[in-house]
Amino acid sequence: MHLFYTPDINSNIYQLSEEESKHCIKVLRLKINDEVNLVDGKGGLYLAKVTNDHPKRTILSIINHQQQFGKRNHYLHIAVAPTKNIERFEWFLEKATEIGVDEITPIICEHSERKEIKIERSNKIITSAVKQSLKAYHPKLNEAITFANFLNIATADAKFIAHCHQNTKQNIESGFAKYQKYLILIGPEGDFSQTEINGALQNGFVPISLGNSRLRTETAALAACFEVNYLNKV
Amino acid sequence: MHLFYTPDINSNIYQLSEEESKHCIKVLRLKINDEVNLVDGKGGLYLAKVTNDHPKRTILSIINHQQQFGKRNHYLHIAVAPTKNIERFEWFLEKATEIGVDEITPIICEHSERKEIKIERSNKIITSAVKQSLKAYHPKLNEAITFANFLNIATADAKFIAHCHQNTKQNIESGFAKYQKYLILIGPEGDFSQTEINGALQNGFVPISLGNSRLRTETAALAACFEVNYLNKV
Repeated sequence: MHLFYTPDINSNIYQLSEEESKHCIKVLRLKINDEVNLVDGKGGLYLAKVTNDHPKRTILSIINHQQQFGKRNHYLHIAVAPTKNIERFEWFLEKATEIGVDEITPIICEHSERKEIKIERSNKIITSAVKQSLKAYHPKLNEAITFANFLNIATADAKFIAHCHQNTKQNIESGFAKYQKYLILIGPEGDFSQTEINGALQNGFVPISLGNSRLRTETAALAACFEVNYLNKV
Repeated sequence: MHLFYTPDINSNIYQLSEEESKHCIKVLRLKINDEVNLVDGKGGLYLAKVTNDHPKRTILSIINHQQQFGKRNHYLHIAVAPTKNIERFEWFLEKATEIGVDEITPIICEHSERKEIKIERSNKIITSAVKQSLKAYHPKLNEAITFANFLNIATADAKFIAHCHQNTKQNIESGFAKYQKYLILIGPEGDFSQTEINGALQNGFVPISLGNSRLRTETAALAACFEVNYLNKV
């Protein structure tokens, strides 16, 4: 069934935007009484039907809905340095959304070549993955922030930093507690600086290894998603 | 240190191809006595130095080498339907190489929209990922084959099929045995047909689920890589 992302839904009647109306009626060729799914990004999954097939102001009527659809049993926040090639970062946004993530913060590090991202464009990629993978929760994408400033505001039950320096590191599963709020730091192509690593350690981040392979930034960030989701499987 | 892929190395002297020579001398600007790494794709990792910096016929001399560098403790064969959008399949090739895979077979299924892939181009992507992630083993990419023909030749210690039909499925970790030869089937965007699933079951494939999320083909294939590698961590 076709799915629309409707974050502003607040009654039993919903009017699609002009763009979505056109998509619904002209592209998908839906007609009166055809059924669609809606997700609000906050856990709500709705079944609705077309009650007015106007190609610019399509009206949907809610038939039923459920809250907390696909609610996750933990909270995963990945703070990752955007890659020099933005496609690699955007790929991470899509895949992390599919696999399962709750919050993403782009962090600007000492060795970052990329200093900014386009939030609106990035959010569109996340929304597209939300729809494709039928998720009722929309991951939160924060504005980019410097690593130093992020350390000052970062909170979680379990905080990890994945870096490539030759220090003692543990696997993430060592002493892992399930159903927590996790925060994982992933550095840029040139890795975190020693100063950044020291700052993270002083703030209670545990250094972890994501295996023996030398992973690209976006692969490491996705590996962290996989591992945390895997370790929280019921 | 810079790394070259030299599958045909067979003595203590190696002459780079004209293209690689140009890259080595004109782009990387390496000079006599500069050191480089070589991998042969069969487990050999070499330390070599430039002994002739000719920009078309660069000569490297091996200083030392080790065999079975980064040898994996299991064998993972992923048979996956190439995606309609070839970039998604190519992305899988890169990421699977980084995470760890031994053999990949493109399978053409009943619901496949894409019927062929360019092996040479795909192999270049794998080679690039091999070099980037410093792997001495080069994953083997087979020619595309129909699903039916593949079933007739497919062998492994543990055979799995990941499909989206609502049959009984187990998680891959249920009764998982480590250090085996694994083969995992991943279907196209339209999933395997019921006939294909029946054929796989008759051939001893175990139906598995890769979690609760609805995953794209290439994400499912990578999820399988992650899980098998994770479950074989020592």
